[in-house]
Amino acid sequence: MAPSRAITSTLKTTLRTPTTIQRRCISAYGYEQAKVLVLSNYGEPKDVLRLHGHSISPPTGDLLTIKFLAAPINPADINQIQGVYPTKPTFTTSLSTPDPIAVGGNEGVAEVVSKGGNVKGFERGDWVIMKKQGFGTWRTHAQTTAENLVAIKNKDGLRPEQVGTVSVNPCTAYRMLKDFVDLRPGDWFIQNGANSGVGRAAIQLGKLWGYRSINIVRKRETGHEALVEDLKSLGADVVVTDEDLASKDFRDQLKTLTNGGREPIRLGLNCVGGSLVNNMAKHLSPSSPLVTYGAMSKQPVQLPMGLLIFKNISFQGFWVSRWSDAHPEEKEKCVAEILDLTRRGVFRDIPTERVEWGRGTKEGELVQAVQGTLEGYRSGKGIFVFGDT
Amino acid sequence: MAPSRAITSTLKTTLRTPTTIQRRCISAYGYEQAKVLVLSNYGEPKDVLRLHGHSISPPTGDLLTIKFLAAPINPADINQIQGVYPTKPTFTTSLSTPDPIAVGGNEGVAEVVSKGGNVKGFERGDWVIMKKQGFGTWRTHAQTTAENLVAIKNKDGLRPEQVGTVSVNPCTAYRMLKDFVDLRPGDWFIQNGANSGVGRAAIQLGKLWGYRSINIVRKRETGHEALVEDLKSLGADVVVTDEDLASKDFRDQLKTLTNGGREPIRLGLNCVGGSLVNNMAKHLSPSSPLVTYGAMSKQPVQLPMGLLIFKNISFQGFWVSRWSDAHPEEKEKCVAEILDLTRRGVFRDIPTERVEWGRGTKEGELVQAVQGTLEGYRSGKGIFVFGDT
Repeated sequence: MAPSRAITSTLKTTLRTPTTIQRRCISAYGYEQAKVLVLSNYGEPKDVLRLHGHSISPPTGDLLTIKFLAAPINPADINQIQGVYPTKPTFTTSLSTPDPIAVGGNEGVAEVVSKGGNVKGFERGDWVIMKKQGFGTWRTHAQTTAENLVAIKNKDGLRPEQVGTVSVNPCTAYRMLKDFVDLRPGDWFIQNGANSGVGRAAIQLGKLWGYRSINIVRKRETGHEALVEDLKSLGADVVVTDEDLASKDFRDQLKTLTNGGREPIRLGLNCVGGSLVNNMAKHLSPSSPLVTYGAMSKQPVQLPMGLLIFKNISFQGFWVSRWSDAHPEEKEKCVAEILDLTRRGVFRDIPTERVEWGRGTKEGELVQAVQGTLEGYRSGKGIFVFGDT
Repeated sequence: MAPSRAITSTLKTTLRTPTTIQRRCISAYGYEQAKVLVLSNYGEPKDVLRLHGHSISPPTGDLLTIKFLAAPINPADINQIQGVYPTKPTFTTSLSTPDPIAVGGNEGVAEVVSKGGNVKGFERGDWVIMKKQGFGTWRTHAQTTAENLVAIKNKDGLRPEQVGTVSVNPCTAYRMLKDFVDLRPGDWFIQNGANSGVGRAAIQLGKLWGYRSINIVRKRETGHEALVEDLKSLGADVVVTDEDLASKDFRDQLKTLTNGGREPIRLGLNCVGGSLVNNMAKHLSPSSPLVTYGAMSKQPVQLPMGLLIFKNISFQGFWVSRWSDAHPEEKEKCVAEILDLTRRGVFRDIPTERVEWGRGTKEGELVQAVQGTLEGYRSGKGIFVFGDT
């Protein structure tokens, strides 16, 4: 069934350009020529990533062939390539190499292009995301089984970039706001890295649920006012720089905002680390959790014991991969809910910088896109957007 | 009713010594001459504590007069006198001073000597402990109302030192072992300050409940072997010095003990702080809590973010005062259970160093006992034991 559909699709495509003919002729028999961005050793992306091509046979039995539409470059992906991330990529010789290789990337959205006869619950044309970390999403095509995929039940009105970035950042923000303390409308939370993907999602979800947010950003020489306006347009109640957080002025402002502490700050979210976290913790109401999900500064947190014992502040961690693995059904619900908010225009996805990946894209461009994320010069999150592959 | 009983008691007493006659004659009319160890300003105990005398009228209405039997000198009491503890002592002019004074001490056991006509649930001769912090227990007598007291329903076979030290340390150990993670028989916990009051209680309660303990103590030049034997006699499975905790030998030993991690270390208890805590946290199984209840080293804990995020170790605090205030009924149950274990001889109270407080005891002796605790030269916890006052 699937191959015949593939042929129909190919016949349409062949009308477009001569170069398409050759590739689609192969596809017509159910084969795909996949390109994958891989590593065989850990190291800096620019040193270890290379583009590898392999052929994918028509799927039989339980197998599906999927074509990627979009796959972001997350900081954790880079750490994984460097070998410093706790989840290792899957090294395999199944992609036609003598030595084991692993495909980079963990998040993304793909389209089902064909499937074996035993596959249930997925149809050609369905959009899918990855159920777990370690799938390897920086690739044009992949062949896999259904248990590694989550179907996007309703893709209407959504762009691949939106679906391809929903699993990590917005889900992280969603769970941290819901799972550590029972926030009530009007309650405050405080977060650093407020301009990050998670930070921007937390501002918006918090606003939708009636929570108020204090948002800490780094002091910027230029563009600070624009950033503040941007975050406020998302729903941020207060934006403050890390330098101003400890100032007497801000403490006074906070007293007014929280009505002298009667409207408490009941949750802290941290992706930075270092001494900043102490200053956040001091502003929290007694018995509040401070949840760490990132460590951008690479500085540890110094915990004064009094905050733990007498103020009963708890320091906890959140890792969306662990949560997703433990709660696959809730993850699916969380994704569906955020995508619904996105579709209705009440949840704005993060600014992305598209890196087009077409059939002719060279290895160097792709590797540089990954390395560039590491060097942090982007205006938004880098995301591979797959054209005609 | 109470006064007439007091007279009977007094008549017996008068047969003993001439000096008793004078005091008990006053008591015969329901009056007590109380001596209290007080401060009017924060500072070092030796500089600010003094002995004050005042007279207590016969109790009427809702009032009870109690005579103290034993009151320990806890480190927190000293911090309170220094003004560096979050719970402040109660300053009052009701003890016949022109300026407000506060009575030192927070824990203790007393006996009801007389009561007003409206008092229910307490009888003369009952033993009582304090419901909350801040009562002021370094005193021979006090007058108060029933809601500040918890009756010891069964004092049979118990010494005042045992009942007077049950509220803080054993309750802390009990709750930390029960309230942060659902330990199963065979599970391990790891604790520092294992020779402290809480540490010794945790070893014993853990053993009774089937948990296994790894106990960290400071390296001692002399008496180390005796200490290890002492803790093992309480039920300690493993005793290790802080220096050896990070050694390869110990890590290897731990692998064997935990059956390669299959028998997990699921809880950490910390009363020391500093880098030691990191080494403990590293030994914990994923998703385990490390609970801080003290900070003897005065060093903060440095938290590597990876432990929080990827290993899901949570850093929490426990303060028995907060818990007692929030759970008065459970506290009563906890106290009763520990006293029952004590009575049955399966729970050993901590080594104490008795400081006798009789009618002739001088201010200097009492103040020195407190200051001495601060200087840590004792072989056990200092405890005021009241003789004929």
